[in-house]
Amino acid sequence: MMILRSSPPSPFGRKVRIAAAILGLSDKIEIVVADTNDPDDSLRRQNPLGKIPVLIDNGRAVFDSRVILEHLDHLAGGGKIIPLDHGARLDALTLQATADGILDASILQVYEGRFREEAKRDANWLKYQADKVARALAPLEAAPPPVGHDVGAITLACALGYLDLRFEGRWRANHPRLIAWLDAFAARTPSFEATRFTPV
Amino acid sequence: MMILRSSPPSPFGRKVRIAAAILGLSDKIEIVVADTNDPDDSLRRQNPLGKIPVLIDNGRAVFDSRVILEHLDHLAGGGKIIPLDHGARLDALTLQATADGILDASILQVYEGRFREEAKRDANWLKYQADKVARALAPLEAAPPPVGHDVGAITLACALGYLDLRFEGRWRANHPRLIAWLDAFAARTPSFEATRFTPV
Repeated sequence: MMILRSSPPSPFGRKVRIAAAILGLSDKIEIVVADTNDPDDSLRRQNPLGKIPVLIDNGRAVFDSRVILEHLDHLAGGGKIIPLDHGARLDALTLQATADGILDASILQVYEGRFREEAKRDANWLKYQADKVARALAPLEAAPPPVGHDVGAITLACALGYLDLRFEGRWRANHPRLIAWLDAFAARTPSFEATRFTPV
Repeated sequence: MMILRSSPPSPFGRKVRIAAAILGLSDKIEIVVADTNDPDDSLRRQNPLGKIPVLIDNGRAVFDSRVILEHLDHLAGGGKIIPLDHGARLDALTLQATADGILDASILQVYEGRFREEAKRDANWLKYQADKVARALAPLEAAPPPVGHDVGAITLACALGYLDLRFEGRWRANHPRLIAWLDAFAARTPSFEATRFTPV
């Protein structure tokens, strides 16, 4: 049994859970919730950066989400969510990098509110990060990627889901083709809805 | 000829330049400096996130640094800087993720000074990021990785080089084994010194 250290709202943890479901590995992974803010959580011994997700497989700590996805793909036989054809592989990996970048810029905006008192929040910084997200979404709206099950599509779905969760789905106002893309991805990927986090 | 969009101080750009040198691909890559702050720089059309490095190969924009390194490894025949053996591959990729995480936490500290007026800088945020760096260095000091030429070692060298550049090499005071590791890496990797950025 592998152990996944994550937390229910984590978009990077969601990448791993969706990948595991697609690859038929979900029942080999036990999720143990991690608290990134607790210095005594064993997370910081598993990943000294204190970041989630981390996958523990037979004593080996594997991170970050990209590396975990590559490991799961290997366990499933290889070439399943990371294409073997080099061109397709570059497409999937660059899309993953784009969507991870959307997530990073989004999370920095969330942290601005979570970590700082009001007076130390910086509108220019927030705009700088929000502009990254807007620019990255634009070419995806113009030409959505295939509705596949590779690491690029999985990550894009998690990024859009995070914008729904933390930014009130405002992206939906002007990205109709990406809405259709996400609906199509969700329709063929039951784990997408199953891993949705709803704040209480 | 491939084109690398980067800037001389970029540690992620340095990863690519060192990898290219190790793989014998340097003379197939022309570096075209990018300004991440200039909205009119073509960088934002190549990578809408506006981040460097980006590698343009035959019209295809490949990013981020991890994906570029995988592409270069493929061009060099494969299995050169990303091991083919799965266990060694996980070691190299997780070390790369650790060192990329050191870089991310370090860059956030630098940006705190670069983007914000004094009153909006947050000591708790700076400490939160600095603690990530310190925690990630600790197990590497306790057990330095092999002095190899895989993506993990390349990235760790760039991370330590960045701590030298932007944090006055303070890490050197209490990491003697990592100093020896970096010296050994540099001794067998001429591109490490050749890509060192010295502020004027």
